[in-house]
Amino acid sequence: MIDSPRPGRTVERSIQRYEGATAHRVDDAIVVEEPLEIRLAAGGATQTLAVTMHTPGNDFELAAGFLHNEGIVRAIDDIVEIAYCVDPAIELEQRYNIVTVTLRAPELPDMTRFERHFTMNSACGVCGRASLEALRDAGLKPIVDDLRIAIEAIYGLPDNMREAQRVFETTGGLHAAALFNADGELLVAREDVGRHNAVDKLCGWALTNRRIPLSSHILCVSGRASYEILQKAAVARIPVVCSVSAPSSLAIDVASEFNITLVGFVRGTKANVYCGAERIGKGDRSS
Amino acid sequence: MIDSPRPGRTVERSIQRYEGATAHRVDDAIVVEEPLEIRLAAGGATQTLAVTMHTPGNDFELAAGFLHNEGIVRAIDDIVEIAYCVDPAIELEQRYNIVTVTLRAPELPDMTRFERHFTMNSACGVCGRASLEALRDAGLKPIVDDLRIAIEAIYGLPDNMREAQRVFETTGGLHAAALFNADGELLVAREDVGRHNAVDKLCGWALTNRRIPLSSHILCVSGRASYEILQKAAVARIPVVCSVSAPSSLAIDVASEFNITLVGFVRGTKANVYCGAERIGKGDRSS
Repeated sequence: MIDSPRPGRTVERSIQRYEGATAHRVDDAIVVEEPLEIRLAAGGATQTLAVTMHTPGNDFELAAGFLHNEGIVRAIDDIVEIAYCVDPAIELEQRYNIVTVTLRAPELPDMTRFERHFTMNSACGVCGRASLEALRDAGLKPIVDDLRIAIEAIYGLPDNMREAQRVFETTGGLHAAALFNADGELLVAREDVGRHNAVDKLCGWALTNRRIPLSSHILCVSGRASYEILQKAAVARIPVVCSVSAPSSLAIDVASEFNITLVGFVRGTKANVYCGAERIGKGDRSS
Repeated sequence: MIDSPRPGRTVERSIQRYEGATAHRVDDAIVVEEPLEIRLAAGGATQTLAVTMHTPGNDFELAAGFLHNEGIVRAIDDIVEIAYCVDPAIELEQRYNIVTVTLRAPELPDMTRFERHFTMNSACGVCGRASLEALRDAGLKPIVDDLRIAIEAIYGLPDNMREAQRVFETTGGLHAAALFNADGELLVAREDVGRHNAVDKLCGWALTNRRIPLSSHILCVSGRASYEILQKAAVARIPVVCSVSAPSSLAIDVASEFNITLVGFVRGTKANVYCGAERIGKGDRSS
């Protein structure tokens, strides 16, 4: 495409930079936030599934990962095509904000079951317990394995993730998520203004590369570990989730329910293991 | 109420704390994340408006602020009552996760216009420009005033907010938002796992105390400044928004459109002013 208006991850803006009482006008790199509409197509019909604020880049992975983590597709073969909007009635600059996923299924899934779901920001009940029950009702089982991860490998994850982050370095405005193998070696890192989007992008990458279930992998996230992050890990069957910050109560509940090892506050050579400590293979586990 | 199961902001959990290769079992304070269902009642009918993940505390403010910032109520007099669920069919522990706002209006507002809205995480279009247009279409005008804020007052905001934060100190797991007057004096601070909830709680406080429009106030947020935060500031007529972290492109666009002064990376005696620099009253504004 020539002269493509495809949005980048950052834009330059002229800002006033204050230091003490003086200010200078400088150009600064700003992380892009744009709506992304995800449409589903099947059997000749098309419908909007969700619109999320996102940072451009890996949009197809974001759509695929979102569909996977919401239980709409289970494998890449369930998807015929993922494409930007080609509707000539829509302005060129907007077409990159609409991604249509064409399903192999003969017709669209029943969308009513998603309406309440999405309204709820991926929560599924009016109490934490109901949220867990909804995940169980969706057929999710605890992750059972004999994976062991050295605590020293955990300590190295945040720095490795930051090294892989291109945009954060420039703007300081993005959440990152990264997948590692059990030795702590980086497979892939993704960024977004939305922390859940960064995880969806990773899962979309895994789906596209036929790596789901991610049974021997570690997910590392730059922000807090919330219910949403753990819910996505449970669906993608990721046994270990690490965060550089704090988990919420419901994140611990989901991790505990689905036997996910949840590590938080990974900083230097310190870390908190909130549940699933049996997968942490070294160290004096006195209790 | 005796033996109320009303949830607190934190819970204690037993965790493994790793330092190097050794681990100790300790009790740790964890920030609570629970779904909150906001119901609207009018003319004898009740309907669910939204469910959001939140941290318990100031739930009525959250509901009131959310309704205000979504344009459903304009003043506290539009609300007859805000109450927790009293339905005996619902288990006691869940009743605190349902807040019903009874409107003075004779019937419920047309909810269809909110469905797409909420699906979209408060975005209103499929491109940034469309999102801005939707806000303009909702009747929002640029904020015009001759407010001047000393840059030195801006520098003091994050520390003042942190001092007011009770839970963050303990758990490190919460976003904070605070309202200041033009001299940088703290009026009120609120916390939540969701950054937008913390801002809704502030606006709900202001609504309840008849302080909206917040025309001579400063909003300070602990996290990034996103579209959502600026949209809420525009509706509550807050002329100055400060963040300790980065703004997104769309946040700057909204600030610029509605003439909001947007300050980011407020750290020590440094800060970036992304737009509305004319309200910053001191300093050598050489450009």
